[in-house]
Amino acid sequence: MAQDEFSLIRQWTSRSNGQEGDGLTVGIGDDAAVFTPAHEMEVVACCDAMTETVHFLKETMKPADIGYKAVISNISDIAAMGGIARYALISIAVSPNWTKAEYEQIYDGIYEACEQYGVRVIGGDTVSSPVSLHLSVTVLGEVEKGRAIRRSQASAGQLVFVTGHVGSSAAGLDLLLNQERQEGEAGGQELIAAHQRPAAQINAGRLLQASEACGALNDVSDGLASELWEIAEASDVRIVVEVDHIPILEAARTYARQRGKDPLDWALYGGEDYQLVGTIEADSLADLSGRFAEQYIPFTVIGRVEAQGTAVVIAREGQRKVLPKAGFNHFGHVDGERR
Amino acid sequence: MAQDEFSLIRQWTSRSNGQEGDGLTVGIGDDAAVFTPAHEMEVVACCDAMTETVHFLKETMKPADIGYKAVISNISDIAAMGGIARYALISIAVSPNWTKAEYEQIYDGIYEACEQYGVRVIGGDTVSSPVSLHLSVTVLGEVEKGRAIRRSQASAGQLVFVTGHVGSSAAGLDLLLNQERQEGEAGGQELIAAHQRPAAQINAGRLLQASEACGALNDVSDGLASELWEIAEASDVRIVVEVDHIPILEAARTYARQRGKDPLDWALYGGEDYQLVGTIEADSLADLSGRFAEQYIPFTVIGRVEAQGTAVVIAREGQRKVLPKAGFNHFGHVDGERR
Repeated sequence: MAQDEFSLIRQWTSRSNGQEGDGLTVGIGDDAAVFTPAHEMEVVACCDAMTETVHFLKETMKPADIGYKAVISNISDIAAMGGIARYALISIAVSPNWTKAEYEQIYDGIYEACEQYGVRVIGGDTVSSPVSLHLSVTVLGEVEKGRAIRRSQASAGQLVFVTGHVGSSAAGLDLLLNQERQEGEAGGQELIAAHQRPAAQINAGRLLQASEACGALNDVSDGLASELWEIAEASDVRIVVEVDHIPILEAARTYARQRGKDPLDWALYGGEDYQLVGTIEADSLADLSGRFAEQYIPFTVIGRVEAQGTAVVIAREGQRKVLPKAGFNHFGHVDGERR
Repeated sequence: MAQDEFSLIRQWTSRSNGQEGDGLTVGIGDDAAVFTPAHEMEVVACCDAMTETVHFLKETMKPADIGYKAVISNISDIAAMGGIARYALISIAVSPNWTKAEYEQIYDGIYEACEQYGVRVIGGDTVSSPVSLHLSVTVLGEVEKGRAIRRSQASAGQLVFVTGHVGSSAAGLDLLLNQERQEGEAGGQELIAAHQRPAAQINAGRLLQASEACGALNDVSDGLASELWEIAEASDVRIVVEVDHIPILEAARTYARQRGKDPLDWALYGGEDYQLVGTIEADSLADLSGRFAEQYIPFTVIGRVEAQGTAVVIAREGQRKVLPKAGFNHFGHVDGERR
């Protein structure tokens, strides 16, 4: 990419919403940004990267979607700590295979996500990449001192919940990769939107943080199975999930039937749903359900935490089975029947 | 890169020095890290990326050097704000063209730099890259509230200084790219070390911050000309630099003579020296020189700030000339004589 195109990206970056004030002492444009967290708040920091061909294809994600989702995946990590997202640093490696217009659209998506979640872009770096586009985002947020929600605090007797629906993003990706099915597919747009324009569950995280009833919390970036195992291992607990309670969109179920697939595979092993999964004190359920309902955030109890050992077990009609961390082998399928 | 190699990198990352305590509430391993800046300190945040073939070649940088330098370039940005570096987030896109041993060495270099500067690795991301290695580092630091040193505070009457020597890194790179000259080159190792293992000037930055006599400050990542122009533009001042006062290592001068090159080109347009360049109140010079001498940090006055307009001018024996932002065309060379 020529020098003038670099300048262009710097120009897009400096259209930044990173104005000083409201805790930000030095915004974008100096060697580093400087900010003060609000009174009685700590800083929450995370970093997530996306590479062309590995995390997205031009065929499945528009440039603005790529920028949008790279920011959302980070805001989602802040949500999973019970925090508020405040600032972003955007590191982009630009490849000669993309046009100036496409890069501008990536930044449109980045700023769209940032503005929706009140995040200011305070820095970053623009470098070249010989072949593939690479986008690495750091998001900094805030959470009340000593009250971040960790994944290691699940304990026996707590209930396991998930927000929203899971498997929608993987269903949407499947639909995008089978383009001939997209036209007129009932509910297809809902699934595609879940893949291209996921939401981060900041409001749900804040509600859980304020309740003081939340044990462990994760965001569903790698599929429900992986997230549940992370909680089970970090907390050293046995988690039992009622498979039939896992919330899956009707559109995903319908599309799965048409494809001869099991939508549970998408829910358990798909990922990129950016919903929150975690544990709550059993006696807080009525109160929390009410608060989630007031904010129109679907909130579903899918299991409970048992004391013994580190495991994730799925249950259906009294039958139990250890949930594999990866791959799939559910009830009702003979091993090797698929794949 | 296969799944088990990813696990290996996660393992190296988790050998992290990011233990909790001393302000760090949640270390590496959760969705995000959580920390509190020290009392009366603000957070300083920056992000710098490096791509294979663009920022380094396997021929000029060993894997450990790459990791080391990626961290140093960020710590240098914290130094240029007068801050202390505290935490790092490491985002790496791994390519199949590198071996497991090489990746481990990159992490060795990352941790070596972090340990030398008291920086704890608190997060990051490991993804695949189809072709080239990409490394993006975010460093978070601290500075006294409201007292970060900006590049926009230069004012007329101040003196312009630079720490250490400039042009050494570019001279070292030139030497590395002309391998046949390396053997027995007098001072060659000093230049190569400046390129492969640069230091970040945290101590110099802290000294300047404490003095309250520093106007503007930048680190020399892109060459002295570019940094001086950034200060001149941000502060709207005219900077006059005495060319013959720019500190260049004797080894660089000697090597330049052998190559028929002008070492000033390396100093003004080479970059990656990670020295600090800035302005100080004229009446603080004696005191500051003494403090730098006590810490054995070379400190050289190279010019002064004049009031009128935005410009960088170089002077030699009474002659003056506007310094080009890029490229080179110094005194004593007829245009077109070289290149």
